[in-house]
Amino acid sequence: MKSFVKKYQQYKKKVDRELRTCIHKNEPRTLYEPAQYVLSGGGKRIRPLLVILSCEAVGGNVAQAMNAAVAIEILHNFTLVHDDIMDNASSRRGRATVHKRWDNNIAILVGDELVALAYRELFKTRSPFIRRVADIFTEGVVEVCEGQTFDKEFESRRNVSLAEYLLMIGKKTGKMVSVASEMGAVIGGGSEKEIRALTSYGASIGRAFQIQDDLLDIIADEKEFGKAIGGDIVEGKKTYLLIQAYARARGADKKMLRSIMTNGGTSRRNIPVIRDIYERSGAIDIAKKAVALNITRASLQLAHLKRSNARDMLAWFSEMLLNRHF
Amino acid sequence: MKSFVKKYQQYKKKVDRELRTCIHKNEPRTLYEPAQYVLSGGGKRIRPLLVILSCEAVGGNVAQAMNAAVAIEILHNFTLVHDDIMDNASSRRGRATVHKRWDNNIAILVGDELVALAYRELFKTRSPFIRRVADIFTEGVVEVCEGQTFDKEFESRRNVSLAEYLLMIGKKTGKMVSVASEMGAVIGGGSEKEIRALTSYGASIGRAFQIQDDLLDIIADEKEFGKAIGGDIVEGKKTYLLIQAYARARGADKKMLRSIMTNGGTSRRNIPVIRDIYERSGAIDIAKKAVALNITRASLQLAHLKRSNARDMLAWFSEMLLNRHF
Repeated sequence: MKSFVKKYQQYKKKVDRELRTCIHKNEPRTLYEPAQYVLSGGGKRIRPLLVILSCEAVGGNVAQAMNAAVAIEILHNFTLVHDDIMDNASSRRGRATVHKRWDNNIAILVGDELVALAYRELFKTRSPFIRRVADIFTEGVVEVCEGQTFDKEFESRRNVSLAEYLLMIGKKTGKMVSVASEMGAVIGGGSEKEIRALTSYGASIGRAFQIQDDLLDIIADEKEFGKAIGGDIVEGKKTYLLIQAYARARGADKKMLRSIMTNGGTSRRNIPVIRDIYERSGAIDIAKKAVALNITRASLQLAHLKRSNARDMLAWFSEMLLNRHF
Repeated sequence: MKSFVKKYQQYKKKVDRELRTCIHKNEPRTLYEPAQYVLSGGGKRIRPLLVILSCEAVGGNVAQAMNAAVAIEILHNFTLVHDDIMDNASSRRGRATVHKRWDNNIAILVGDELVALAYRELFKTRSPFIRRVADIFTEGVVEVCEGQTFDKEFESRRNVSLAEYLLMIGKKTGKMVSVASEMGAVIGGGSEKEIRALTSYGASIGRAFQIQDDLLDIIADEKEFGKAIGGDIVEGKKTYLLIQAYARARGADKKMLRSIMTNGGTSRRNIPVIRDIYERSGAIDIAKKAVALNITRASLQLAHLKRSNARDMLAWFSEMLLNRHF
């Protein structure tokens, strides 16, 4: 397990280096300076790691997967830059967002440019399956736009069903993660069965990851979490917890949750009250179980692969995501 | 020549139909409704036509070129949607822009989605050269972002040199046009010489087209032009005419032009005065010559191609663009 941590750090470093050096131009400065800023901003590099490990798990190697790994991380960063404009977010990974540090127009352009850079990187992949890889990647872009659109739509809706929420996060968060493992499997020359297993592994991880995110907003240690907890409650975000709690709560509790949905949020001092309702209604418990279930589902998919170090590392990787407090 | 008009109409219709039918989804409605709105908004379809004709001119056929033709038009529409946000433009082709009819967030998402749809369409191209085609296309997206960034940078600059202006329009307008003809030539299986000739044809056409656009803002017939003339002057846009006139004018004329640059525009009633300065300084004459020169350059490139109906139509096409009053 210690060697997995080391390998993760090693791959992450490699991806970071590629991201730092993939832009060769300086001009126009107002485009490339913020683009560099974004790509050097750090992050857990989960998606690139999944591309690499999935490629290895079907018999490929890290060199084959690297361009696609970098491409999907650039694409992920594009979504962050544009989402931050739409959400009017002022900080990300402890630094000012692009549209705050520069302006909205620059952030739009930087996001657009990142999409192009992502494709440029992707096409460097030397694989007989490049067409299929490109289609998978493009479908990822399509769905991530759909997911973000649903997310914005839901903000102004009074109620969102669990099915709608799951559809939304499947597109907004899950798809990119399954695209990562699917691309890796295809590039590595996996069989159709292996590709299906790894795609499905990614989809489960993506879902677990998002529900975990919703959970951490409520139960995380603020210091480890790096930001104040309860932000989703204050903003009235229709998270997995709010939706589950609302479906289960009765009486005054239900009324309280309804007011958050209707008013699009509440004040900070209500956070402990809401957390108690989440607890009482069983929503926190259900969310924890949903995360664990999806991690188990992901692990089960790995049984379709041959034994390998990469397969073991994928199993470790999903467990690590489950136990993360960051 | 009459048959060229007919053929143009016929190809344009085909492209329009593909654009209307390339979106198969309805949900999320707030994404696909505006996307459909954009793709059914009409336009001259110059870039798709160039893909098709360039493909034919090297021995290929319209069926081979159609996906790439549609792809570049979708991409062009992406740039319009995002540029309209940045320019705060309220109408386009006689209809409300996306961000006015819906809102900024939706316009950002629709633009992003159009990029993905453009790539999806592009990858339908059945060609052994798909990798090269994808690289050309991606370089187009990169440069169009660079061009738009320069354009926004120049807005807040006091002075812009002619070289800077030409660099900017080369990226913002020219590149997409040369990408169109280059892709067509590659898909059609053209020789390197033919590909070079058609790329260069497109670059000249693109430049002619942009200078013509700057000219029409001053000398067009308002009715035919479809909008009030002098808009660029009112907004203080650093057009080919303003830059050329400023380099040539003296005394009071120069002072007047400087004030437009410094104040970022002037009032509508000054339009006739400025037009006179443009005339007097010789800028209008120079602009007309620059358009004609670039059209001639484009035609000369066609000499590198074998005789064909498509080659003659490309010659006709550039002449038509020169004589357009729209």
